[in-house]
Amino acid sequence: MVPRPSGIVTLLTDFGHRDPYVGVMKGAVLRANPKAVLVDLGHEVPPQDVATGAFHVAAAIGRFPIGTVHVAVVDPGVGSARRALAVAACDGFWLAPDNGLLAAVLAQDAAAEVRALDAELLQLRDLSRTFHGRDLFAPVAGWLANGRYGFASLGPRIDDPAPGEVPFTGAPQVVHVDGFGNLITNVPARSLAGHARVELGGRSVPVHGTYADVRRGELLALVGSYGLLEVAENGGNAATRLGLQRGAPIRLAGG
Amino acid sequence: MVPRPSGIVTLLTDFGHRDPYVGVMKGAVLRANPKAVLVDLGHEVPPQDVATGAFHVAAAIGRFPIGTVHVAVVDPGVGSARRALAVAACDGFWLAPDNGLLAAVLAQDAAAEVRALDAELLQLRDLSRTFHGRDLFAPVAGWLANGRYGFASLGPRIDDPAPGEVPFTGAPQVVHVDGFGNLITNVPARSLAGHARVELGGRSVPVHGTYADVRRGELLALVGSYGLLEVAENGGNAATRLGLQRGAPIRLAGG
Amino acid sequence: MVPRPSGIVTLLTDFGHRDPYVGVMKGAVLRANPKAVLVDLGHEVPPQDVATGAFHVAAAIGRFPIGTVHVAVVDPGVGSARRALAVAACDGFWLAPDNGLLAAVLAQDAAAEVRALDAELLQLRDLSRTFHGRDLFAPVAGWLANGRYGFASLGPRIDDPAPGEVPFTGAPQVVHVDGFGNLITNVPARSLAGHARVELGGRSVPVHGTYADVRRGELLALVGSYGLLEVAENGGNAATRLGLQRGAPIRLAGG
Repeated sequence: MVPRPSGIVTLLTDFGHRDPYVGVMKGAVLRANPKAVLVDLGHEVPPQDVATGAFHVAAAIGRFPIGTVHVAVVDPGVGSARRALAVAACDGFWLAPDNGLLAAVLAQDAAAEVRALDAELLQLRDLSRTFHGRDLFAPVAGWLANGRYGFASLGPRIDDPAPGEVPFTGAPQVVHVDGFGNLITNVPARSLAGHARVELGGRSVPVHGTYADVRRGELLALVGSYGLLEVAENGGNAATRLGLQRGAPIRLAGG
Repeated sequence: MVPRPSGIVTLLTDFGHRDPYVGVMKGAVLRANPKAVLVDLGHEVPPQDVATGAFHVAAAIGRFPIGTVHVAVVDPGVGSARRALAVAACDGFWLAPDNGLLAAVLAQDAAAEVRALDAELLQLRDLSRTFHGRDLFAPVAGWLANGRYGFASLGPRIDDPAPGEVPFTGAPQVVHVDGFGNLITNVPARSLAGHARVELGGRSVPVHGTYADVRRGELLALVGSYGLLEVAENGGNAATRLGLQRGAPIRLAGG
Repeated sequence: MVPRPSGIVTLLTDFGHRDPYVGVMKGAVLRANPKAVLVDLGHEVPPQDVATGAFHVAAAIGRFPIGTVHVAVVDPGVGSARRALAVAACDGFWLAPDNGLLAAVLAQDAAAEVRALDAELLQLRDLSRTFHGRDLFAPVAGWLANGRYGFASLGPRIDDPAPGEVPFTGAPQVVHVDGFGNLITNVPARSLAGHARVELGGRSVPVHGTYADVRRGELLALVGSYGLLEVAENGGNAATRLGLQRGAPIRLAGG
């Protein structure tokens, strides 16, 4: 159940790139574990947007070497009584505030083991009340990645993590607009069977295999890089073209 | 001709930083090769802008250790029949869709060896049709970097890569505006001999050795960090000042 | 005084992410030292804004393993006669143009040893006049990190580095707005004793321990991640809310 650490630590935050917060957090991982291999999963989650963070966490599942430690910090409740979680699931380790960020990980692995980080036990006594990414999650990630602490030593098991909203569930809708303007929906590939069109924003868009199956400037629906249905414009920006955003409802049709 | 891999893999894409695409691509490199050393060459190429991507690829030539694997993914034709290339040239390896991204590499090394990636041969059978950066180029980069596959095993030699537009050629013009607002041209340093001024946008600008050779707020032309003629404002933003963009013609004068 | 190199090199620049400048600079570190471990401290310092750069340098002090090499390049005077510094201080090494970027490092360590990089001695003879990040600081960082050059071999000792403006000093004011819209001031935690409120922009804001101590949408002052007093809105953007920017004066009150 609990894999051997790979030595790799990924970071997902809403810190952006304007401030040295990400760099300083990496310094804290490296102070705990100078051999840690750091990979950015992303730092442009909109400030305090736990739902987008949870969506990006979901995108990392199964995409890194077994035993990778994933740290996700979108943490509006930092400094409050909210717990900090360590989860062993989906062939890796996941550290995050207990606010639903890890909902997809917990939903996808019925055998997930969840622990609440115990700062006392870990001898982390000078925690700031504003930056647990640096002061708590980063050193724990470093220690977990090099085996200084085994997963079971991080704190007591708990069975009631905050449920959060599991990405990809709920009524069919746009859940993310990516940097290309593709409208990513919460409809998984398997739900597409028998459907040839997608309706959204008063339009009906044909389902195809890839962008190049339609002419430049034409809209299409396809299973995209997230493994989810998305609506795109070949060579263009579908979000701008359709004037749609996160939350726009969609409907499968033509089956 | 074909160097020993350095273990380093650089990534250049148009994925931006808002989505986890770059992180997931790095995960795919590390799954193929957990020891790979990853370096971002850049991810802010404007979406599907192959010309800017080709320009940034050119900037990497000769700038990394011998045997570095460079992956460039600006790929409007992903999922279509366009080939995927591996090139051994300029002391390194270059992986990219066959759309002209590698034009400068091919132009600068007459002994370049070009192969078309053979996904069957490489046992990459579950390629998505939308994300070859993750599903094809990343694992091949990892394997090439650790020697699991030698360059010659990646696929058949071809002699007709898409020519693309070689950066730095064509009529003298602005080919890139950098983040400082410097107007980078396609005029190489050697073409400057005997010229003391540059004309563009109805202005005549003197050539100097460096920014600090003129007063703050003054315009100058100089050979910049790309090894190309650029027009800059000392302490300011020449692009804003002159209202010029990519494509603006320039003329060498005063020789 | 002079620590053993940790092998880690951090980079702080104003190069942004649009251009391949950061990637090419990393290539230059790796050409000098293929084993260097590179960490981005940040590249979004506003162009040529030495004061913000100095602030971000200060944020790195004490945050990385002992013996880390920090490279900071915000360099409006590149190519002029300004010196290039190497400083051994605060348990690490610091490389930067001699323009005040390292003011906090020099202020915090009375035993700081300062040297002027000697390009001749280091056999760096083909320096460009526009990109010392790549041509000078990067290779020196690589060599220092792997011990090819000891600190004392980098150039002559000097005792008159450009003083710059030490971050955190001067009249109480906002010195930085972070990506969350928090207004970071130059008031250190220790100066807060006996004060219960902060006045700025015609408002009086209560001091609390963390964001979650007030309701969502309420303003508060707290000691933030920089170890400095900051003014924030729980769940919101204080800078937008108050319409304040860098330079806004503040006053401690209610003590």
